[in-house]
Amino acid sequence: MLALPCVRACFLLRASRVASRARLLHPATVMTVAQIDEEVAKLLQLKAQLGGEDGKHQFVLKTPKGTRDYNPKQMAIREKVFNTIISCFKRHGAETIDTPVFELKETLTGKYGEDSKLIYDLKDQGGELLSLRYDLTVPFARYLAMNKITNIKRYHIAKVYRRDNPAMTRGRYREFYQCDFDIAGQYDAMIPDAECLKIVHEILSELQLGEFCIKVNDRRILDGMFAVCGVPDEKFRTICSTVDKLDKMSWEDVKKEMVNEKGLSEEAADQIGEYVSMRGGMDLAERLLQDQKMCQNKQACAGLSDIKLLFSYLQLFQVTDKVVFDLSLARGLDYYTGVIYEAVLTQAGVPPLASDSQNGASSEESAGVGSVAGGGRYDGLVGMFDPKGRKVPCVGVSIGIERIFSIMEQKAEASAEKVRTTEVQVMVASAQKNLLEERLRLVTELWNAGIKAEVMYKKNPKLLSQLQHCEEGGVPLVAILGEQELKDGVVKLRVVSTREEVDISRADLIAEIKRRTSEA
Amino acid sequence: MLALPCVRACFLLRASRVASRARLLHPATVMTVAQIDEEVAKLLQLKAQLGGEDGKHQFVLKTPKGTRDYNPKQMAIREKVFNTIISCFKRHGAETIDTPVFELKETLTGKYGEDSKLIYDLKDQGGELLSLRYDLTVPFARYLAMNKITNIKRYHIAKVYRRDNPAMTRGRYREFYQCDFDIAGQYDAMIPDAECLKIVHEILSELQLGEFCIKVNDRRILDGMFAVCGVPDEKFRTICSTVDKLDKMSWEDVKKEMVNEKGLSEEAADQIGEYVSMRGGMDLAERLLQDQKMCQNKQACAGLSDIKLLFSYLQLFQVTDKVVFDLSLARGLDYYTGVIYEAVLTQAGVPPLASDSQNGASSEESAGVGSVAGGGRYDGLVGMFDPKGRKVPCVGVSIGIERIFSIMEQKAEASAEKVRTTEVQVMVASAQKNLLEERLRLVTELWNAGIKAEVMYKKNPKLLSQLQHCEEGGVPLVAILGEQELKDGVVKLRVVSTREEVDISRADLIAEIKRRTSEA
Repeated sequence: MLALPCVRACFLLRASRVASRARLLHPATVMTVAQIDEEVAKLLQLKAQLGGEDGKHQFVLKTPKGTRDYNPKQMAIREKVFNTIISCFKRHGAETIDTPVFELKETLTGKYGEDSKLIYDLKDQGGELLSLRYDLTVPFARYLAMNKITNIKRYHIAKVYRRDNPAMTRGRYREFYQCDFDIAGQYDAMIPDAECLKIVHEILSELQLGEFCIKVNDRRILDGMFAVCGVPDEKFRTICSTVDKLDKMSWEDVKKEMVNEKGLSEEAADQIGEYVSMRGGMDLAERLLQDQKMCQNKQACAGLSDIKLLFSYLQLFQVTDKVVFDLSLARGLDYYTGVIYEAVLTQAGVPPLASDSQNGASSEESAGVGSVAGGGRYDGLVGMFDPKGRKVPCVGVSIGIERIFSIMEQKAEASAEKVRTTEVQVMVASAQKNLLEERLRLVTELWNAGIKAEVMYKKNPKLLSQLQHCEEGGVPLVAILGEQELKDGVVKLRVVSTREEVDISRADLIAEIKRRTSEA
Repeated sequence: MLALPCVRACFLLRASRVASRARLLHPATVMTVAQIDEEVAKLLQLKAQLGGEDGKHQFVLKTPKGTRDYNPKQMAIREKVFNTIISCFKRHGAETIDTPVFELKETLTGKYGEDSKLIYDLKDQGGELLSLRYDLTVPFARYLAMNKITNIKRYHIAKVYRRDNPAMTRGRYREFYQCDFDIAGQYDAMIPDAECLKIVHEILSELQLGEFCIKVNDRRILDGMFAVCGVPDEKFRTICSTVDKLDKMSWEDVKKEMVNEKGLSEEAADQIGEYVSMRGGMDLAERLLQDQKMCQNKQACAGLSDIKLLFSYLQLFQVTDKVVFDLSLARGLDYYTGVIYEAVLTQAGVPPLASDSQNGASSEESAGVGSVAGGGRYDGLVGMFDPKGRKVPCVGVSIGIERIFSIMEQKAEASAEKVRTTEVQVMVASAQKNLLEERLRLVTELWNAGIKAEVMYKKNPKLLSQLQHCEEGGVPLVAILGEQELKDGVVKLRVVSTREEVDISRADLIAEIKRRTSEA
């Protein structure tokens, strides 16, 4: 009720805003249909906010478009996934950093090419011009340059923001987590690159998402391939982005796009077609190093030699079972300079992400059917921030955590096992009235001993409702107090799943609870 | 280099932006000095970005005003603090939720009174009007109303945003963490309220921040006190915010403000002065219930009876040693309806937050010298979101985590013990050249066994530099490989702190490392 005057003031403000909006529309302004739709939607929203017949203020009870709340069940799943991933990062000796959710607009400018239009800007309220971060890689590069750090192995798990067309049922949001691991520093070739792939292998295995495969390629091999196939230099990037669609489109359609839309010669397209159908392991790299055309291109040779070296390390890391050298892999982002990779779930039953093609999905997100991780080497990005252009070579991987959340959520839905949203080990309950004080005394004892415990916030809760709460929440034990128990100096300990009950002396209770909950 | 054309395009854009900005300034626009300063700063920033004499693009390498990066050391401290706090929340059976970093602007409107000017808005890029969240309480209330949840015990740890005057050396930022625990639901009086205080007690004790004290009061007691002292109804809020300054100002100055600035009668001020000097425990509540004036006010009586009840529960929770009923406590936020509380560090040596008064610090943040937690009961907020105004009573507490971070950081600086930023247990090193493959093979074995291990990403690192890395990073063990060790089927295990070395057979290595790192 204190807020009422303010709400009224807002009405006036809003009303004048509506008026000026309407005025703006009058002159022969050129607007697209989409813009008009948006304006109409906004006006209707304002109207709704101004209230119905009764003039009562109606809130629009929703989260912004493309975003969602996480409820406790989703948070429990999220926590489990994060724990697995963070343990892996820590096992590999990574530190972690954090950066602000927004950066100077300037910092993001010129890093994302076409996709820059998807960046969220903050309103100019005086002071600096700010934008929400679009990924964690550019802030990482800014951090390194700003602090003159030349080597670090770090992970960063945080939300990023893209004004994309959301497809929330398929796990694509405007606010979503990225989960990045990167190694920066001047090191011997392919050793950190191989560790990134080892990490992807470990994480996907531990999460038990089903069969997967990690595709590997190299930006230099792609560029060399385009060169020897006769693609003009200035068409490398655009042809590359067409190749990138091979996981969602047939070769015939990709070829059509290259020839009809991008103006490539049919001959060049066919030559590309031959290469991009190739996949294998170290053997394929060796064969291509002998390839009459490829071996003439310096870039391609360097890339192929590195792929060979990479596979030798992957063998030592025992992960070659899942890694495929695939010449059709062409990740979208501009800043990659060397090896690139992408992990895909291959098992049937992976929820579809395939029918994504109708809307302008950013190439990185929709990179593949069931794509769950991706990354590569970017040796030039930090230099873009350094006043003297000093380079810090980097290689990294981003785990597609939102997609993994969706899969884990669906698995949890399908499973008979309930997802617990708390970790409560015991509820302190009473069988009779007027035992609130005794319950509070006992629960204090348990808390002070580090036991996760609960009481109901009622003076006289029914025993049945206390037991029901435990069944619903998956609480394994109930410590029941009654007149008789208090007299005897015991507590009735009930196992919720079996309904078995046993009297335990107060002195032994904590040890007994710890014993029973640690063995579970 | 791929980004160059784009950078050039940005120059043009920026140049035209400068031009139009300059045009805007020409007409006799009314501007404040502060606005002019801001404009000048922006123009200079743009100029700097346009480059020096060489025309080279210079990035401004900084984070936005009032924000900071967390480096690995700060993250290690942050993780430790979060773990303590989250363990406590979980011990008390809390679930957790998450909400988007921005809300519909609408959702935040009319919730923060004066402070609404500090809300960050997003730019209107088409679509909904959005603002960054200002706290976690309003999103929580929106979440409850939207999902029709009538009872939940949840914690939420996330960043919030305020365009405040940053005072970063004193731990006040524009982007900062909030760490909230709330209990929503219709329960018997004061039981959840008491649990919130128990939680504050546990957390502050476990974090070992030194002596602390938790002040308690009630919004109804304050209002009742103002009424019986003769403060006119319409002056309750403004007088309340003056009382709120008692922890930073002397009573004389507070009285002056009441009388001279707020137009209160001297007599009323003096009566308030008597009450707000009172502090005690349950006894004080009992005494005030007998107070001739107070006992005539219904609101005050209800508040005082609840304080009595609260203290009886606090006794059972064994936390009365730190809790004080303090009539001068008057937290700023409008939405409190019942009990309010605030925890303060009382030990000498707490870094100063006192000299905060020169800038318009929002009342909540600067609430006290060494304030590290605060909260209260807000029974009306959820109803503001519900279309039918259905109320969901809530009580909660917010831990002042940024302040705790600063204190922990200063403690870490002062301490001789190094803060480790990784958890690496063993480095796999080599004493001779050409052992990269052997190192990779061994580190793979360790990783696969769940041991946290590292290798240097060099073909032939010097043994000394490998050992140095361990000393600097606090890695406790080194597994050293050499020709002789490989021949003998052993690994030389070196304890970094003592420099003692012992040969361990390859078969026993994993068990030996686990044994040595678990006992540490």
